[in-house]
Amino acid sequence: MKHQSDDQLYLHLLGQRIRLAREQKGWSQESLSFACGLHRTYIGAVERGERNISFLNMKRIATALDLSLSELLDFEEK
Amino acid sequence: MKHQSDDQLYLHLLGQRIRLAREQKGWSQESLSFACGLHRTYIGAVERGERNISFLNMKRIATALDLSLSELLDFEEK
Repeated sequence: MKHQSDDQLYLHLLGQRIRLAREQKGWSQESLSFACGLHRTYIGAVERGERNISFLNMKRIATALDLSLSELLDFEEK
Repeated sequence: MKHQSDDQLYLHLLGQRIRLAREQKGWSQESLSFACGLHRTYIGAVERGERNISFLNMKRIATALDLSLSELLDFEEK
């Protein structure tokens, strides 16, 4: 179903974006988990595109990665 | 508690941003609700900063408003 596959695509793109930013900082999932106060397994699931993450959790992850929300979500082509 | 007030602030800023973009299109909450497939009362609550909205619902609202997620979330000062 088109709707479902779009959702999956965007969750996947977000997860990849977070992983890239984390790796650019040279952090493990554990370090990011510690920095943003979210469980390591949750971070892993978000990076795999398996969680429809909330706004505030995105904000926590962005802040821990020294990114604004806008920067974290800049993966969409215009 | 500091943590709580930061969260409230960001939910409030997001809600204001969505309201501004909606009003710039000359839309009522009902029109936005119809365009993005989310209930009007939910849209109202999000605009009032009362909902910790999910990534996919933000994506639906941004798309309905012809904005990228990055544009929708550009309200943070750097």
